[in-house]
Amino acid sequence: MAHSETRQADGICGDMCNDMCDGIWTNARIAPAGNPAQVILDGAMAVRDGLIAWIGSAADLPAEYNNADWPQHDAGNRWITPGLIDCHTHLVYGGNRADEFSLRLAGASYEEIARNGGGIVSTVQATRAADEDDLFGQAARRLEALLAEGVTTIEIKSGYGLDLATERKMLRVARRLGEHYPVTVYTTFLGAHALPPEYQGRADDYITLVCDEMLPALHAEGLVDAVDVFCENIGFSVAQSERVFVAASKLGLPVKMHADQLSNIGGTRLAARFKAISADHLEHLGEADVQAMRESGTVAVLLPGAYYFIRETKLPPLELLRRYQIPIAISTDSNPGTSPTTSLLLMLNMSCTLFRMTTAEVLMGVTSHAALALGKAGQHGLLAAGRGADFVLWNVESLAELAYWSGLNPCDAIVRAGRLSPASKKGAWS
Amino acid sequence: MAHSETRQADGICGDMCNDMCDGIWTNARIAPAGNPAQVILDGAMAVRDGLIAWIGSAADLPAEYNNADWPQHDAGNRWITPGLIDCHTHLVYGGNRADEFSLRLAGASYEEIARNGGGIVSTVQATRAADEDDLFGQAARRLEALLAEGVTTIEIKSGYGLDLATERKMLRVARRLGEHYPVTVYTTFLGAHALPPEYQGRADDYITLVCDEMLPALHAEGLVDAVDVFCENIGFSVAQSERVFVAASKLGLPVKMHADQLSNIGGTRLAARFKAISADHLEHLGEADVQAMRESGTVAVLLPGAYYFIRETKLPPLELLRRYQIPIAISTDSNPGTSPTTSLLLMLNMSCTLFRMTTAEVLMGVTSHAALALGKAGQHGLLAAGRGADFVLWNVESLAELAYWSGLNPCDAIVRAGRLSPASKKGAWS
Ligand SMILES: [Zn+2]
Ligand SMILES: [Zn+2]
Repeated sequence: MAHSETRQADGICGDMCNDMCDGIWTNARIAPAGNPAQVILDGAMAVRDGLIAWIGSAADLPAEYNNADWPQHDAGNRWITPGLIDCHTHLVYGGNRADEFSLRLAGASYEEIARNGGGIVSTVQATRAADEDDLFGQAARRLEALLAEGVTTIEIKSGYGLDLATERKMLRVARRLGEHYPVTVYTTFLGAHALPPEYQGRADDYITLVCDEMLPALHAEGLVDAVDVFCENIGFSVAQSERVFVAASKLGLPVKMHADQLSNIGGTRLAARFKAISADHLEHLGEADVQAMRESGTVAVLLPGAYYFIRETKLPPLELLRRYQIPIAISTDSNPGTSPTTSLLLMLNMSCTLFRMTTAEVLMGVTSHAALALGKAGQHGLLAAGRGADFVLWNVESLAELAYWSGLNPCDAIVRAGRLSPASKKGAWS
Repeated sequence: MAHSETRQADGICGDMCNDMCDGIWTNARIAPAGNPAQVILDGAMAVRDGLIAWIGSAADLPAEYNNADWPQHDAGNRWITPGLIDCHTHLVYGGNRADEFSLRLAGASYEEIARNGGGIVSTVQATRAADEDDLFGQAARRLEALLAEGVTTIEIKSGYGLDLATERKMLRVARRLGEHYPVTVYTTFLGAHALPPEYQGRADDYITLVCDEMLPALHAEGLVDAVDVFCENIGFSVAQSERVFVAASKLGLPVKMHADQLSNIGGTRLAARFKAISADHLEHLGEADVQAMRESGTVAVLLPGAYYFIRETKLPPLELLRRYQIPIAISTDSNPGTSPTTSLLLMLNMSCTLFRMTTAEVLMGVTSHAALALGKAGQHGLLAAGRGADFVLWNVESLAELAYWSGLNPCDAIVRAGRLSPASKKGAWS
C-alpha cells in the first residue's frame, strides 16, 4: 500500500471526507462485531456508495481495490468498531429536572417536590407545552453529545405526552432528528409510560385510549417502529401491558418492555410470550424469566445510568443471563427523571464498574447485541461486506479503554453511511 | 445597553475574542464565588488587561465602562461562574491500566494481574520509560478534556517516578502544560506516593531519599508548589509522613495529605498539626480528626471518582464536615489506577449522587473551596474586582444542571486571564 499517498488531515482524511468517504481504509485494527476477541489486526476495508464493499486483512485485499485511483484512507493504526447503538432512550422531552434533583439533595420531602411541580408530571407538562421546534432543539443538544462519542443508531421513545397530539409531536421530533443528523433513528411508542393526570384512577380507560386511538393513528402516520410498556407496580399491570401488546401485534409491530426494574410482577414472562425483542432494566429478574427470554429470543437491555442515578442496590442477575446465554445490550436510558445522561461511553464504564460486566460484554452491548435489541441485527452492529459503512475510529491502544476511561472521548472520527460525520472531533487544539 | 451593537458569533463573541476579551460583559447571571445562593441575576462585568475591573448589577455599571467605544459582549443570559479548579490530580503519567481493568473484570486474580505487569508498578515503569514529550502528549489529551469543561486551574502531582530524574520529568511536564495551555498549573511533589521496587523493605531509606535529595533538588529548580504524602497502611506511616512534612516545612512549602482513605492511622491529625492546606479522600475520618482540621484550617478534598471506581462503600463523613464547617472541595483525582476520569463535571454528579452533597456544596467544591484547598483563595475561585478574569459561560437554565447531567457539557465559553480559551466549544454542528 502506498501510505505516503494517502490523504490525511488531523491524521484521518482530508476535505473530501466531508463528502463521501469512498475508498480503501487501511492500517486499521478492526473489531467487526464490536467483540474484542474477534479482531482483524492488519485490517482493511473498502467502502463504496455508502456500503462496505469488502473487509478483511490488508494482505487479502482484492486487486480491484488495490490501485492508486481509488481514494486511500490511513486509519493510523486506530481501532475501528461498528458505529455505536444506543438502543433505549427517552431523548425527546421538554425541560429538565435539575432543580428537583437539587431540592431533593437539600432535603426536600417528596411532598415539597410535588408542590414545586416535580416528578414525571412536570416533564409531561413541559413536553405538552413545548412546540415541535423547541423539543427538537432541546433533544438535538443531547443527541449531539451522543453522536460525538460514536453513536450512529439510536432508539427514541415517546411517553411524555400521554395524549395523542403530544405523543405524535415527540415521535415526529424523533424522526426529524434522524433526518437532520447523521444517525439512524428507530422510534418506539411508549404511550403506556405513565398514567396522565387527567386519567387518575382510570388506568384501564387510558390503556383503551392507547390501544384503540393513539397507537393505530400514530402507526398509520408511519411514526412507530416498535411498542413499549412500563410494566411495574408503579406503572401498568401485566393485564394492561398485555392489552397493549395485543394491539401492537395486530398491527405487526415488535414489542419491548420496561420490566422488572423495581419489582417482579411477571412483566418479562409476558414480554417473552409476545416474543418481545427486548426486556429492559431487569434488576428483579428471576430464573424462570430468564428461561422464558431464552425461549423467545428476547434480548436483555441493562441500564446502568438509571441504576446509578436512583441508587439502586439490587443488581441485574448477570450470572443467570450468562448461564442462559441471553444477549445483553446496554444503553443510556437517557431521560430527565432517572438517567439524565448523554454519554454511552459512561454507560460502558458503569456497566463494568457497577455490574462487573467484562469489557467484551459491554462493547458487544452497544454494537451487535444492541442491534439485536432493536430487532435490527441485519442492518446494524456488524461491519461486513454489503452492510452500511457506519463505523468509528478510536484513538486507543486497547478497546478496553472505551470502558476504562470516564469523561475522555477517544473517538477520532465517525463514518456514517459512508460519510465522515460532522460529529467527528474538530481538533480545538490543532 | 445597546445590545443590538454587541459583537456576537455563536452567541458569544466574535473573532476579536481569540485575542483579548477586554470589554463589558452584560446580560449575564453571575455566581461570583460559585455559590448558587449568592448570585447577581442582572450581572455585568468589566474586563481590562486580563483582570476584572468591575463586577456587579448591570444597573450599577459605572459610567466609565458604559460607553460604545468599549467592546460589548452579550452573555445571552447565560450563567457565569469562576473558572473551575481541579485541585487534586495525578494527570501526568505513562501508559494506562485499561487492560488490567479488563483482566480484573474477566476474573483474573491479583497474582495473574501482577504477573501481567499490573498495579502501580506498571505505571511507574511506563512513566520512567517515557520521555518528556511523550508524557506531555499523553497528559495533554487528558488536560484538554478537563479544560473543555471549564477548568482554568489545576493541581498536578508527581509520584509515578519515585526517583529523582522521573519525578523531575513529571513536574517539568506539569509546568510545560501550564505554559502551553490556558490553565494555571500548581505542582505538588508526591515522592512519597508508593515505595519504588528497588527500595522494597527499605521504606525509611526511601523517605530519606525523598527528604534529603529529591525534595531539595526539585524545590531548588522551582518545580514544587506543595508537598503531599500517601499516608496509609498500604502507603507510608505517620512517622514517615511526618519526616516528609518536616522537610517541606523547612523549605517553607505548604503540605497536604492523601489521608484516611482505606483506614485511619492518624494521618489527618498529623496533617492538621502541620497546618496542611488540605487532607484528601477522608472516607475513614473521625470526629477528632475533623476537630483538628477545623483548628488548623485544613480543607477536606473529597474524591468521588476513586470512591466509585474502587467500589468503596464507606462514605466520607459529610455530616461531621458540615457540623464543623470544614470547607469541602471535590476533585477528579485523575489517575490510572483508581480514578481514570477526565471529567470534573462528572465528579459534581457523583458527589451529589453518591455522597448526597448538595448542588451548592459541589459547585463551591470546584470553585471557592477548591481554591482554598490549594492555598490560593486570593488568586482563584472568586470573581471580584482586581482578580484575574477566569470565568466560564454555561448554557444552562439553572446552575444545578452542572451537577445533574452526566456526559452533557454545557460549557459554551471559557475566558482565562481575559482571553477566550480555545477549549471553548467549536460548534461542530453550526
Ligand atoms: Zn426507559
Ligand atoms: Zn490522589
